[in-house]
Amino acid sequence: MRSKPTILKLGGSVVTKKEKLFTPNKRAITRLVKEIKFASVESLLVIHGGGSFGHPVAKKYRITEGFKDPSQIMGFSKTHQAMVSLNKLILDTLIQEGIPTMTIQPSSLVITDNGRMQHMDIKIVSRLLELEIIPVLYGDVVLDSVQGFSILSGDQLVSSLAIKLGADRIILGIDVDGLYTSDPKIDPSASLIQHINLQELKNLQYKIGEAKVPDVTGGMRGKILELIPAIEQGIKAIIVNAVKPNNVYRALKGEKVIGTIIKKGDKVA
Amino acid sequence: MRSKPTILKLGGSVVTKKEKLFTPNKRAITRLVKEIKFASVESLLVIHGGGSFGHPVAKKYRITEGFKDPSQIMGFSKTHQAMVSLNKLILDTLIQEGIPTMTIQPSSLVITDNGRMQHMDIKIVSRLLELEIIPVLYGDVVLDSVQGFSILSGDQLVSSLAIKLGADRIILGIDVDGLYTSDPKIDPSASLIQHINLQELKNLQYKIGEAKVPDVTGGMRGKILELIPAIEQGIKAIIVNAVKPNNVYRALKGEKVIGTIIKKGDKVA
Repeated sequence: MRSKPTILKLGGSVVTKKEKLFTPNKRAITRLVKEIKFASVESLLVIHGGGSFGHPVAKKYRITEGFKDPSQIMGFSKTHQAMVSLNKLILDTLIQEGIPTMTIQPSSLVITDNGRMQHMDIKIVSRLLELEIIPVLYGDVVLDSVQGFSILSGDQLVSSLAIKLGADRIILGIDVDGLYTSDPKIDPSASLIQHINLQELKNLQYKIGEAKVPDVTGGMRGKILELIPAIEQGIKAIIVNAVKPNNVYRALKGEKVIGTIIKKGDKVA
Repeated sequence: MRSKPTILKLGGSVVTKKEKLFTPNKRAITRLVKEIKFASVESLLVIHGGGSFGHPVAKKYRITEGFKDPSQIMGFSKTHQAMVSLNKLILDTLIQEGIPTMTIQPSSLVITDNGRMQHMDIKIVSRLLELEIIPVLYGDVVLDSVQGFSILSGDQLVSSLAIKLGADRIILGIDVDGLYTSDPKIDPSASLIQHINLQELKNLQYKIGEAKVPDVTGGMRGKILELIPAIEQGIKAIIVNAVKPNNVYRALKGEKVIGTIIKKGDKVA
């Protein structure tokens, strides 16, 4: 029987240099592509974020606010194209390493409803997985039936596709080691949470909600909020630091790795 | 009332240098983008071909034959990515000129049935046209329910989208002046057909059928075969030489231009 798919999210802060506009982190992309290659997971889908490509343009044109005035139209166009640039670089790198892959452009097939994806036809994605072609999606600007257009974040895609595809697990590759008991950037006593269950995660969410580190698609709080529906379906999630070499490889191989494992029913620690 | 859309096809031999692998015709692309800009058509959809990007890779991996062996999988991936490269260049040029545009990736939303598109959801394309964002599509490799994968030619997309969108007209920009009474490359007495009706076109098709100039998506014969369903729906088509400056501009503006006008019901000449 074919194995259930693994969903790998590569954060925008991992594949780009967040502080420099339109600057990919080529070294990280090349390394992560090799980690994907050597892990050789049978059924893998990759989703990446926008980082310094999508976010600054989306912000400049206030895309998340929806269509308010015609000057935003060019911004819609530019935000998407920025994502295309980043996505193309990732796909080129995968293909160079001999990995069969194809982008699935979210804005080609999703119209959101007030920023939320109600429906996505997964026939093509499923068929690609069957052919062992890695589908790659990304956070994108999309048309929205209520507000004209919106942003469909990579994190929303992760959870949604994991559920629709009956994924085995989600691997979130971000730029910190995982979830902490509090914000490690401001609290020196913060410690890494290695295992957490759904109930604990929901409790934690309120604490994280107090942090003041938002980005246009939500910061860590947004990520967790998006993850919850998938965890509720029994899908396991692992958060690892993808900036550090071999963590994504280890997570893909199912090996022990520093990070946060989130399961629906783990015993409360 | 909003005007009916115009479908502009830019042939692969126009936007690329056919004889050199992966070589865009940047000068032609820049010029055509400016022609599109200055014509300023209210509702425009653009489709481009593959030329030296898609065709050689598709041919090498025998994509039109469908999925026969696993070695083709990498070719599927590479053919699509070659089209992405060309498409990105065209979109970047449009955006640079301040034209709002967005690619709609055919392989993201179409599965063919033995090489033929049975269904395509045009909701997103229609909505982009309403927002005066130019949707750009291209000949692409797509999954196929019968043969695994296939090529969905730009010409098939042209006719199909023209019908679904209730287009006003189709402008085909190719590398010759239009349809001829016989092949001008081998017959010096060949003369340009300036007007032709559906019945005459159908008759002509058999003559063109004898020509031996096929490409992976069909040569001139293929183009005409694809056009017929749209002409039957009363959509006018104009074939112009897009290699020569201002022809596309004139056609877009509805001005007199050297080329072939195809209408369903024109009187027999």
